[in-house]
Amino acid sequence: MAGDGSERALQYEQTLMYGRYTQDLGLYAREEAARLREEAGLRRSLSDRRKSLELLEFEKGRCAKCRICTVRCQKFLISRVGEDWIFLILLGLVMALVSWAMDFCIAICLQAQKWMFGGLESNVFLQYLAWVTYPVVLISFSAGFTHIVAPQAAGSGIPEMKTILRGVVLKEYLTLKTFVAKVIGLTCALGSGMPLGKEGPFVHIASLCAALLSKFMSLFGGIYENESRNIEMLAAACAVGVGCCFAAPIGGVLFSIEVTSTFFAVRNYWRGFFAATFSAFIFRVLAVWNKDEETITALFKTRFRLDFPFDLQELPAFAVIGIASGFGGALFVYLNRLIVQFMRKQKTINKFLMKKRLLYPALVTLLISTITFPPGFGQFMAGRLTQKESLVTLLDNRTWAKQGIAEEFDYIGHSQAWQHPQVNVFVTLLIFIVMKFLMSALATTIPVPCGAFMPVFVIGAAFGRLVGESMAAWFPDGIHTDSTTYAIVPGGYAVVGAAALSGAVTHTVSTAVIVFELTGQISHILPIMIAVILANAVAQSLQPSIYDSIIRIKKLPYLPELGWGHHEKYNIRVEDIMVRDVRYVTLNSTYRDLHDVLLTGHLKTLALVESAESMILLGSIERAQLQALLSQQLGRPRRLEYMHQRAQADKKRLSEISEDGGQRVSQEVRFQISTEESSYSPPRSVSPKPLKPALKRSSVVERSTEIPISPQDSGIALKNLFCAYPETEGLEDDPYMEDDMTIREIAEWEELQLDEQINFDNCKIDPAPFQLVERTSLHKTHTIFSLLGLDHAYVTSIGRLIGVVSLKELRKAIEGSVTGKGVKVRPPLASFRDSGTSSSETEATELHKLWDRHTSISLPREHLQTSDSDDKSQ
Amino acid sequence: MAGDGSERALQYEQTLMYGRYTQDLGLYAREEAARLREEAGLRRSLSDRRKSLELLEFEKGRCAKCRICTVRCQKFLISRVGEDWIFLILLGLVMALVSWAMDFCIAICLQAQKWMFGGLESNVFLQYLAWVTYPVVLISFSAGFTHIVAPQAAGSGIPEMKTILRGVVLKEYLTLKTFVAKVIGLTCALGSGMPLGKEGPFVHIASLCAALLSKFMSLFGGIYENESRNIEMLAAACAVGVGCCFAAPIGGVLFSIEVTSTFFAVRNYWRGFFAATFSAFIFRVLAVWNKDEETITALFKTRFRLDFPFDLQELPAFAVIGIASGFGGALFVYLNRLIVQFMRKQKTINKFLMKKRLLYPALVTLLISTITFPPGFGQFMAGRLTQKESLVTLLDNRTWAKQGIAEEFDYIGHSQAWQHPQVNVFVTLLIFIVMKFLMSALATTIPVPCGAFMPVFVIGAAFGRLVGESMAAWFPDGIHTDSTTYAIVPGGYAVVGAAALSGAVTHTVSTAVIVFELTGQISHILPIMIAVILANAVAQSLQPSIYDSIIRIKKLPYLPELGWGHHEKYNIRVEDIMVRDVRYVTLNSTYRDLHDVLLTGHLKTLALVESAESMILLGSIERAQLQALLSQQLGRPRRLEYMHQRAQADKKRLSEISEDGGQRVSQEVRFQISTEESSYSPPRSVSPKPLKPALKRSSVVERSTEIPISPQDSGIALKNLFCAYPETEGLEDDPYMEDDMTIREIAEWEELQLDEQINFDNCKIDPAPFQLVERTSLHKTHTIFSLLGLDHAYVTSIGRLIGVVSLKELRKAIEGSVTGKGVKVRPPLASFRDSGTSSSETEATELHKLWDRHTSISLPREHLQTSDSDDKSQ
Repeated sequence: MAGDGSERALQYEQTLMYGRYTQDLGLYAREEAARLREEAGLRRSLSDRRKSLELLEFEKGRCAKCRICTVRCQKFLISRVGEDWIFLILLGLVMALVSWAMDFCIAICLQAQKWMFGGLESNVFLQYLAWVTYPVVLISFSAGFTHIVAPQAAGSGIPEMKTILRGVVLKEYLTLKTFVAKVIGLTCALGSGMPLGKEGPFVHIASLCAALLSKFMSLFGGIYENESRNIEMLAAACAVGVGCCFAAPIGGVLFSIEVTSTFFAVRNYWRGFFAATFSAFIFRVLAVWNKDEETITALFKTRFRLDFPFDLQELPAFAVIGIASGFGGALFVYLNRLIVQFMRKQKTINKFLMKKRLLYPALVTLLISTITFPPGFGQFMAGRLTQKESLVTLLDNRTWAKQGIAEEFDYIGHSQAWQHPQVNVFVTLLIFIVMKFLMSALATTIPVPCGAFMPVFVIGAAFGRLVGESMAAWFPDGIHTDSTTYAIVPGGYAVVGAAALSGAVTHTVSTAVIVFELTGQISHILPIMIAVILANAVAQSLQPSIYDSIIRIKKLPYLPELGWGHHEKYNIRVEDIMVRDVRYVTLNSTYRDLHDVLLTGHLKTLALVESAESMILLGSIERAQLQALLSQQLGRPRRLEYMHQRAQADKKRLSEISEDGGQRVSQEVRFQISTEESSYSPPRSVSPKPLKPALKRSSVVERSTEIPISPQDSGIALKNLFCAYPETEGLEDDPYMEDDMTIREIAEWEELQLDEQINFDNCKIDPAPFQLVERTSLHKTHTIFSLLGLDHAYVTSIGRLIGVVSLKELRKAIEGSVTGKGVKVRPPLASFRDSGTSSSETEATELHKLWDRHTSISLPREHLQTSDSDDKSQ
Repeated sequence: MAGDGSERALQYEQTLMYGRYTQDLGLYAREEAARLREEAGLRRSLSDRRKSLELLEFEKGRCAKCRICTVRCQKFLISRVGEDWIFLILLGLVMALVSWAMDFCIAICLQAQKWMFGGLESNVFLQYLAWVTYPVVLISFSAGFTHIVAPQAAGSGIPEMKTILRGVVLKEYLTLKTFVAKVIGLTCALGSGMPLGKEGPFVHIASLCAALLSKFMSLFGGIYENESRNIEMLAAACAVGVGCCFAAPIGGVLFSIEVTSTFFAVRNYWRGFFAATFSAFIFRVLAVWNKDEETITALFKTRFRLDFPFDLQELPAFAVIGIASGFGGALFVYLNRLIVQFMRKQKTINKFLMKKRLLYPALVTLLISTITFPPGFGQFMAGRLTQKESLVTLLDNRTWAKQGIAEEFDYIGHSQAWQHPQVNVFVTLLIFIVMKFLMSALATTIPVPCGAFMPVFVIGAAFGRLVGESMAAWFPDGIHTDSTTYAIVPGGYAVVGAAALSGAVTHTVSTAVIVFELTGQISHILPIMIAVILANAVAQSLQPSIYDSIIRIKKLPYLPELGWGHHEKYNIRVEDIMVRDVRYVTLNSTYRDLHDVLLTGHLKTLALVESAESMILLGSIERAQLQALLSQQLGRPRRLEYMHQRAQADKKRLSEISEDGGQRVSQEVRFQISTEESSYSPPRSVSPKPLKPALKRSSVVERSTEIPISPQDSGIALKNLFCAYPETEGLEDDPYMEDDMTIREIAEWEELQLDEQINFDNCKIDPAPFQLVERTSLHKTHTIFSLLGLDHAYVTSIGRLIGVVSLKELRKAIEGSVTGKGVKVRPPLASFRDSGTSSSETEATELHKLWDRHTSISLPREHLQTSDSDDKSQ
């Protein structure tokens, strides 16, 4: 299966170039490509040897040995890892450059705003105008640009990546257009100084980058078109996205796993680590080369004391931060969803906003920047600090409030922003937290590329700081009762709060690791872990994660997770949720049946059963394949052939009469047949779609790209099926034969054709579609669907097809929206009891239903009088 | 499915108590239990309320608020998380206590040795005797104790856990005996001062602890017997094991995932984090309460400078450490395997050692302790330091060798051990590395509970230190060219080396995280990540991990991983490796067929097909179930019934003659039937084994515990099947009827019974055993087997059973031991080309084979002349 894709690509090209003879030419081209690749390999190894020789001569230099080592290691890696690591390094490199360049631009944008603001200090009104206009323009541009270039670039992108990694390919989310829109939109959005984050979009950008790189690399190699490989690479790309955004390789890998995967293949672990490490490395090296830093360090380096980071008795305070963050995180998700739903429900607002798309972003930006206007309300909430500056000050290791009196602290640098002559630092912090909370929840609903991680992170840090400052004020000499006094470090609380709140909003534990990598200190590991776990426990029990919430809002085809305590899932069976009215074709169906089935059904695949009576499932066929079959049967080429044959017969009759021109006709016939063969099955319609038994992934947009025939190609009956699709390509008209049949003749001919039995010879059939038994529990079904990335599964009973269950039914059942049968959420401790009693009962009935049914089919019902066997088998 | 187990347990008890009426009583008991549980819940909530009221009154105290919060949070957690978190907390607590107590004992043991050694300073010979005898005695005791109590406790335990988490339940590895043997054996082994580690055994101990705790908790709750839940808990336990061994919760979770899992369910992530964090917390809190530490800090805290941890130009040196560690790690694994295989191959040695089991451990210990004898050779390799002390000195942030002259350094404390008047510190380090390397590889082959992680970690640290010291000697003023000079920190190199070598030996990346948590510093994150990834790349390409190596040596039923570049796996199909001679029963088989099949086959499950002609697979039945069926048919109760009926018929005839005593006989008959019902199907034979479709896990030892009947119960024909099993329980003899049939009569009766058709009514059938198509690729088969934890899968072709493939065949195919058909390892870059061409060809043939076959079965072969359809479908 590894090379199917590349082969398809190759073949497609050759088909275009040479018209036919695809197979042979494809083989030739492949051999040629292999030869070229081998030669390139030889040349490369030669040049490598030369290089190492040169290096040997150069050995007087300091790093020569190291370089030789590097060269050797490189050669070794090339020979071992194949091409994977090259891809990962390229990906890491590109993403590091993108991340660094974007940071650079954002910094310039923010500086420009500050410069404007500073320059107009004389006039408050002008200052306000400048302060407000700048972000409004940037956000409006970002929203407009995104909307025009690629509307799917708006938002975080993590929900979409989760869906894609689940197996549902949303192709429009992985295009170059989206990449451009996302990068430029994100730069502008972040440059505006709104409380938006770059993490989520970066996950998306990295995935886009990986997808584009895959496409680019597929020009050279073969495996880059392999679907499962691409999924693996996308998973690695998500890690790179987080990794190069925060220079946090480990946290990046873990965060991306938690946020995007359901089941994680440990064998792909190294990919993420490798790429994320390389990316983070380059990202930080760029900072060193740009003289921003002296050496590679953490992004938000803290300098807490190492010898006594915190006292044991401070732990309850950390736990409180965790629990409060849990509630806060849930509230944030709820608020965010509420705003979106409010905007959608209010029809008048909605209509108005749909018309003037830029108005909503502009209004929100205006509101937020008005609030943060430093000489105005912003003075009470450190409004003039950028997100990054606030975070740096919040993680400061000095205590702001000594003995509860804020004035004693000598504020320097950015920390001055937290000082206000009238109100003390606690009030400032409180206002900051509340306002930022509301502003962030509002800002993340703007349709620009933006994430919610960083704003939430800052709010969490502020909350932690507030608790820490309170603790410091409460225990001015520290809690420790021994001789040595260790003062409380509020910065440590800020770190804990940041990890806890961001963990609560995203439902992840790995924010702890991200925090370690961001701050470069791991001394607070236990408080952070405790707070993050508590925050997760609370938040997960109240609300879905922000990403799952967006998935629900956007109605993406994703399978929700089963909750912790939902033991009721064991009681629901597939038969309760399956669709019993399955569309199928039988082995002896006519084309007319096929036509009717295609008209009525909507599923992407159709079941193939032996006969309508036996209903034994033989396989499944993709809709597109069947449409191709039908269009072949009714298509113009076949009709032309029919006409030609008729004409030939006529001519033969004529020649039998006149005995001349026979030679010419037979020539023409041969040619006709060959033309028929090449246009009969155009390369796109029967491109070698690999057979995908069991582990199949289907794409949502497949239908629109894989429609095998152009509408003008189709006959009357086909028009019903294909009328929705625009003209895609002109048919090369057969110059030797004009379509001189009347519409009535065509209809008659089609009626005849439709009564023929289907010829499945040219049709790709999946011989092992995934099957479930009707009493498989919802829980198990969910596991299997998640594990294998299924889209649908047939429900069979001893080989007989009795139903089909797709992602949609499963999602409905899990979300409890199936009335009467859905999952009713009951207290977990109660449900736990129920599942104990019901499952074994149903197991027994399952068995006996099965057996009763089967005995009624093939066995004499001689054992049915033993109805007490139920009790015995228990 | 959640409550099957508890129900089974309940039911079993009641069966013993009341003889029959199981079902009704089971229901009653369950209701009763539910009522009691509800009452307990009410009572608990009442007492909670009272407690919080008391606390409110107590509010003058400092921590009152915190306590109220804690109580509330506790209540909240109880209501939300159900019981899982209680289990995890208990597990964490127990493991922390075990770890701490063990560390305490080990420290005492080591101190005792030092004290003895110090006390005998006058006489070198006595000193030597004491130095050598002490570890020999301890190791011999450990080996002997382990061998007597539970031989499976020897070694690391991680390979076994990997196998168990793969789905193969090795029950004898999870018993109380093993727990005792492992804990005591490990304490003695580590107390001896040999280069052994505690990490691997701790993973095993934690799993044992979880398994035992599960058993214990199942006395109270219901879900603790659920198999899949237990597997989840075992995975969490592995994390706890590492976490409380190193006080490294995050590293513990990641390491355990990397080492034990193939596919990881992200929804179980929190369990590991929760339990490991709690465990690590308690473990470190114990140290604080014991006044060892002032507050919670890292185990091997380092104090490297934060502002400039390393220079960018030092990175090549770190990369060199990584690559060299990769080779070193591979060498270690190879050496370790070589020693084991050498000891096994040498038959004379082997025989001798098998007789005197304690000799080998004693000899090895003698050798190693002789080498480390401080006044002897030990003086050149810091022999008097324990493992922990060496590590602490190696991670020291001072430079030992200034300007290459070792004498200038002012050695204090344990660091003195590295100083020698004649040789400089480089030589000492080199000798230390080489000798420790050999000693560790040798010591880990001793059959005591021991791991290899910690010794390897120390060797890595020494190697890193060596490189670091060399760098420090080479660049005495640091590499940095700016005004400020930053000296090189050799301790940082030691950290990198430790992570890289342990990563190389175990094939994990997460050793990096463990190192951060162990040292409490994350400043060297990039060098460590780079070194670990390089070490992994090198080591993985040369050797399997130490755990996989042990799995191969021990021949555990584990599925090996598919390598990186093994694209050939795509070319092998299931039909190449499957067993075609499948044992099956048909719906109309007689008991005689069943008897024959059971005698010849060995698989744990048998296929059930419709008939020998159609071969349509209907399901699979466990061997034990079939044996129960057979024994029911031929068992004594049935024979007695038969005799009774015969007797009754005789009596009836008699009564027809004499017309008296009818009343008595009919009474007896009624009673007989009821007895028959209760003893007919003894609770153990048809205990409600839950039906496990698709996702089934079967246990290796199941057969021995699940034999449903005692041998004396069985007839002559059954004797063949069950003669191997010892008498398990006496049959309660029926006092009303003695077995007065002669052997000949019995044999005749059995022949009659064997000719009857099988009645499957009482038999649990898995209606959806996992099925593959014959052309499923090896790669996909491997993925499915790993994902679903399958033991075997049937190979079907359009419903017809044509073969079976089990873990064994799959393993053989992957390891290439199937002659002619196995995987030949070719250069990965070459194979990459092959897979591109071959896969699509085979897909096509697959399709057409399928269709050809099917058309030959049910369709007229009218379409077969279109043989050029191959080309078109391409």
